[in-house]
Amino acid sequence: MIREHRFTFGKFISQVHLQKQLPQADDIFQDEPAFRSILISDTHTEAVALRIRQNHDIPLCVLSGGEAAKGWPAVERILAAAKTGGLGRDGLFIAVGGGVVSDLAAFGASIFMRGCKLCIVSTTLLGMVDAALGGKTGFDLFGIKNLAGTFYPARHIYLPLETLTTLPREEWKSGMAELIKTALLDDGEMGKALRVLGTGFSRGDLLPEYEELLFELISASVKIKGRIVEADPQETGTERALLNWGHTFAHALESSAGLGTISHGEAVAWGLVRSCELGHHIGITPKERAMDIIDLVRSFGYEITTPHPKMGDKAIFMKALWGDKKQKAGKLRFVIPMAQSVQIIQDDLIEDRFLPPLINGEYAL
Amino acid sequence: MIREHRFTFGKFISQVHLQKQLPQADDIFQDEPAFRSILISDTHTEAVALRIRQNHDIPLCVLSGGEAAKGWPAVERILAAAKTGGLGRDGLFIAVGGGVVSDLAAFGASIFMRGCKLCIVSTTLLGMVDAALGGKTGFDLFGIKNLAGTFYPARHIYLPLETLTTLPREEWKSGMAELIKTALLDDGEMGKALRVLGTGFSRGDLLPEYEELLFELISASVKIKGRIVEADPQETGTERALLNWGHTFAHALESSAGLGTISHGEAVAWGLVRSCELGHHIGITPKERAMDIIDLVRSFGYEITTPHPKMGDKAIFMKALWGDKKQKAGKLRFVIPMAQSVQIIQDDLIEDRFLPPLINGEYAL
Repeated sequence: MIREHRFTFGKFISQVHLQKQLPQADDIFQDEPAFRSILISDTHTEAVALRIRQNHDIPLCVLSGGEAAKGWPAVERILAAAKTGGLGRDGLFIAVGGGVVSDLAAFGASIFMRGCKLCIVSTTLLGMVDAALGGKTGFDLFGIKNLAGTFYPARHIYLPLETLTTLPREEWKSGMAELIKTALLDDGEMGKALRVLGTGFSRGDLLPEYEELLFELISASVKIKGRIVEADPQETGTERALLNWGHTFAHALESSAGLGTISHGEAVAWGLVRSCELGHHIGITPKERAMDIIDLVRSFGYEITTPHPKMGDKAIFMKALWGDKKQKAGKLRFVIPMAQSVQIIQDDLIEDRFLPPLINGEYAL
Repeated sequence: MIREHRFTFGKFISQVHLQKQLPQADDIFQDEPAFRSILISDTHTEAVALRIRQNHDIPLCVLSGGEAAKGWPAVERILAAAKTGGLGRDGLFIAVGGGVVSDLAAFGASIFMRGCKLCIVSTTLLGMVDAALGGKTGFDLFGIKNLAGTFYPARHIYLPLETLTTLPREEWKSGMAELIKTALLDDGEMGKALRVLGTGFSRGDLLPEYEELLFELISASVKIKGRIVEADPQETGTERALLNWGHTFAHALESSAGLGTISHGEAVAWGLVRSCELGHHIGITPKERAMDIIDLVRSFGYEITTPHPKMGDKAIFMKALWGDKKQKAGKLRFVIPMAQSVQIIQDDLIEDRFLPPLINGEYAL
């Protein structure tokens, strides 16, 4: 059970290795030879990193886990480990963890001596279907998610399904929202497969029973995301913005609730539902399509009502919405579902007239 | 008196405007329209930044000057100003100052929302002939110069000669070393022109008397550097490494003396002389060529003896040499002059056998 995907993001090449087993240091060095390297994990993935390391003499930098740790001090710790480890420009950073670890380690790799080598071993569903692929790196600053970051795709990305067997249910939910989002960008069979997964998830754990289905869904999701990023690696066009479906709302919700209070997936799922309501209200999203999406999101047990119970003050939410880094020429962008695909809307009317009632729950379907 | 150069560095295009006068905000916005922008200066260039700003409502972020300020806190202040100023991804950072300001502002621009627009108004000779052009950004960390950074060329680079009229003599010396280095990479007429400048400099100020010669030398230097960087934008090949002539020694000297104690130019000039001595000793540099370079360096009044009076402990110097970011596959690189051009040497023998006597002054010419 192994599948390889290869993508070209501008001048970078990323190879994705979707597999059942955890890779070992020897496997990684075979793919990416390096004179010196460091491992970066958080407290949750320290044991996994040690299993990867085997008997190699590779320094391990263990970060505290969670979104709250995603700041400059963590980046500085990574850079200090690289310096102490004697890495040069041809040194290799090996990130072992979910999105927070890979975003931080990848940012560190992108700025250490102006860029060294990077491999990611993704250990969460969210990491596998989203964070690890596509080159976005970053950390939170002044309470804004990923306010600082770079584009720096990893050379090799390992997605070992076995690491998901111990993943807490909350982490599954966090990743599933991105999987749903990416799957819905494609007009294929993924919607059906996701419904099967939703039913399974409502009954209990997905592994080992749904392993094969999960493998195929992750593979399909990687392929969809990879193709979109290939078309627009640095989000200068509009293709890549499609991946931000639900995210304008999600980032504002995460900020207003306090970073780390709500999982990214919870926020994205909530944002997807808002985009359906908004799209329906402004006459772009057919009701049937909106309900399909909302039902799918609901089947995974996400909180989808608005205002979200953890949203906090609405004024702070609106301000966070405005401060969101997606703002372009002073306007907010929304990805809105249509009957088959999605479209990007950027309109003063939405901001001024539609957002307040939407957030008050007046457009609920 | 205006000259334009245009370079393509990978996917970036940099336009250099060498001119007599300071550009105004209106000029900059004509070259680079922006919805929102910030100015970044240090305390030395605050007045210049205000002259550029005119009556525009552009927030100004004033950093403390000097190499000692070139750390993460300064980057964070710049990012905070951009956030407060409401800049989006299409926001514009306008750096006004020498290499420290432009390196910091350019780094900030490269990571703010994963990259926004950047223009540089270079106000020092060092900035004009080196730092402002070529996309290297960065800041000092753990006592190592530019340990963290990115490649992020500015869209427009203004080199207004009038800002040099108030430049302190020490700053002239700092820039002149890079001008000498770049000029010597080219087998043209620049060597002669530099000798004229050296004689003038030993007598007093270069402006206004040598303005035209200076204009031509800066223009030639920009062209040489630009062409080298075009051939190897991110220093993955060897072309760009040529620009590091003297720098392996220089960075170690700066580090061992304590960052900010010796100007970058003082250190580079000292490093150029070391490369001549080393090259002569290992039989690569003809004595005549070595003496020509050393005489030229000496004519500008640089301290060229070794050990350098400010070098500090030799063991620390050697350790700093090793920690230098130029190390590749665990070996140090040296640029060594030949009869006509230069070559890059990477050899264990140099490190193990030749460096200690070289630093002790045993190879003095």
